[in-house]
Amino acid sequence: MQTSAHEGHQAATPCDAVQVLTPGHRYDILIGAGLLGAAAAWQDLPRALHAVVVSNPTVHAHYGQALQLALMARYPKVSTVLLPDGEQHKNWTSLNLIFDHLLATGCDRKTVLFALGGGVVGDITGFAAATYMRGVPFVQVPTTLLAQVDSSVGGKTAINHPLGKNMVGAFYQPQRVLCDLATLDTLPDRELRAGLAEVIKYGPIADMAFLDWIEGQLDALLSRDRQAVAHAVRRSCEIKARVVGQDERESGLRAILNFGHTFGHAIETGMGYGQWLHGEAVACGMVIAADLSAELGLVDRSLATRLLQLIERAGLPTQAPPMPMSQWFELMAVDKKAADGDIRYVLLCAPGQARMQAAPADVVERVIRRHTREPGTAAPPA
Amino acid sequence: MQTSAHEGHQAATPCDAVQVLTPGHRYDILIGAGLLGAAAAWQDLPRALHAVVVSNPTVHAHYGQALQLALMARYPKVSTVLLPDGEQHKNWTSLNLIFDHLLATGCDRKTVLFALGGGVVGDITGFAAATYMRGVPFVQVPTTLLAQVDSSVGGKTAINHPLGKNMVGAFYQPQRVLCDLATLDTLPDRELRAGLAEVIKYGPIADMAFLDWIEGQLDALLSRDRQAVAHAVRRSCEIKARVVGQDERESGLRAILNFGHTFGHAIETGMGYGQWLHGEAVACGMVIAADLSAELGLVDRSLATRLLQLIERAGLPTQAPPMPMSQWFELMAVDKKAADGDIRYVLLCAPGQARMQAAPADVVERVIRRHTREPGTAAPPA
Repeated sequence: MQTSAHEGHQAATPCDAVQVLTPGHRYDILIGAGLLGAAAAWQDLPRALHAVVVSNPTVHAHYGQALQLALMARYPKVSTVLLPDGEQHKNWTSLNLIFDHLLATGCDRKTVLFALGGGVVGDITGFAAATYMRGVPFVQVPTTLLAQVDSSVGGKTAINHPLGKNMVGAFYQPQRVLCDLATLDTLPDRELRAGLAEVIKYGPIADMAFLDWIEGQLDALLSRDRQAVAHAVRRSCEIKARVVGQDERESGLRAILNFGHTFGHAIETGMGYGQWLHGEAVACGMVIAADLSAELGLVDRSLATRLLQLIERAGLPTQAPPMPMSQWFELMAVDKKAADGDIRYVLLCAPGQARMQAAPADVVERVIRRHTREPGTAAPPA
Repeated sequence: MQTSAHEGHQAATPCDAVQVLTPGHRYDILIGAGLLGAAAAWQDLPRALHAVVVSNPTVHAHYGQALQLALMARYPKVSTVLLPDGEQHKNWTSLNLIFDHLLATGCDRKTVLFALGGGVVGDITGFAAATYMRGVPFVQVPTTLLAQVDSSVGGKTAINHPLGKNMVGAFYQPQRVLCDLATLDTLPDRELRAGLAEVIKYGPIADMAFLDWIEGQLDALLSRDRQAVAHAVRRSCEIKARVVGQDERESGLRAILNFGHTFGHAIETGMGYGQWLHGEAVACGMVIAADLSAELGLVDRSLATRLLQLIERAGLPTQAPPMPMSQWFELMAVDKKAADGDIRYVLLCAPGQARMQAAPADVVERVIRRHTREPGTAAPPA
């Protein structure tokens, strides 16, 4: 079943393209199987003496060589930096490994960085590109479902701070996003499910027909049916590209993409980065946010129930870990959407529509308690 | 002679304004004495719950309270972060002190940062503003001549890396630059002279009439004559604003502002950050760059001589410290202007005009040797 990364090296593979259009920047998301090893996929990128591939040891072992060979057709020097894997390493130390390498190998302002990996590699590499010599071009080559449908698209780059996730970063758009569907064949099941959380997200906030489709195709998606996965990636990217095109800097609309994330980030930070996968925390966060929306009378409870059931079927957590209520609120208060001392939540306001608003603390507290498992029961999702 | 920072608190002081216009951004440089303590100076900045003043202990002792009082008329919460003083602290550790404070005090995306200090405080604070929550507004309140005439204007922000100066940063424009000329009264003489290096720079690269004026007014400038200093700051800001307005991201023209900096950065990095002041290294770098321009036949030798004599009269170093030639070239190779393996120098190509180009290594080496003092002679400028 698994496509070797080398197969794609022989010829360009047919692929879909979704265009992202922001003020002052335009780029394509290419979607297809076996793309990353095809020299043709890289032919029209900016010229430079150096290309630098940033990855982690696991992903690099699978796809590093194929990418490097393909890039050598365009770049005289291609080198690699490997970062330790996991959300707990999305920090300054990893970022600085990239800077050390770039400076030690004499990389100049034209150098193109390639992020080969999941959301952690993509976010750090993007931030390195945004800040090395005040900005060099970069390309996203996401190899997890989560990164393909969400984090690699739209130019949000960041590292974590012990007090809050993604607190230090930049809006910085890539030159291209290349989603090689073949890379998902080597993805662990847990990571696949985590990616589905972000796919599911696009339904309730933007496209109820897509939610219907996901419900119908969930088994095909879980068994990695190539056609079903291709559609999920393409439709997710289309929705994300449209939202980002309207509001690159998250002055309003873009915040809807953060549905489930206020609660999710609190879980990730509260449990220690890397304990819960981002998608797992977002899944649980969406359950809480949907319930909160229903509790405030913004949408019918049936929508919240429907979402809960889909998330459960996808094998994703629907119950938050036990955490003192004071810690929840402390962590949510540093959320980037907070303003003038108010925590603001992304809530469903109609099927397929979301908006950002404050909510009474007692209602939020009640809803969190309803979706928290008893201390001592079941471990984190692993 | 010295204007207390508190005098200005009573009423707005007459001031000059120079406008900076970049794609997507417009802001004023206000220039006058006693401005920072005038609440009126801050009235039309973006609203927020928090304002955070970033400074160093020395500058804060002089002007921190006056600024804080003035800001309290507009911002409900005003807090302060102090960074250690000196170029050797323009690094991630200092930057992270700001992030720690912002997160610990619950600062949101609207929070406005105020950089009260010289180039180090301005560059770090600007980079913190560019990256905290992917960007918050900030204001430059430069208190050194160097920062007023150069580093606070134009949106270059950065921290240093052990392998190269200003290697990690962003182009990020402030909301306003406020040059309070009264703050220069407390500036040590060595810092004043270092600032004059950047003032002198604008002559040969952009305005020979300004060079004439500086030569005539040098004694007044060195004795801090308020009118002479005001003109030097205003004219420098006008030239810088014009260049930055034409080329914000340094794709070409803006590089001329780096006259003397390729050699200067090599001295600063090679000697260890903080040993030579930036302006001192730039002064010596301009002597070398002007000589190189003459050596290559781009300008008459009399211009190089004239510049050397002015720099000498200003009490600035004209001789580089002894440093192995291999180290010079290694350090210059990581300069941000380098491209495709070539070091590129900003050279004078006519009186009042500069451009960027490569130069034969043997000529560069000869010129560096000519302006290097013998090992064992004279200490660094201190």
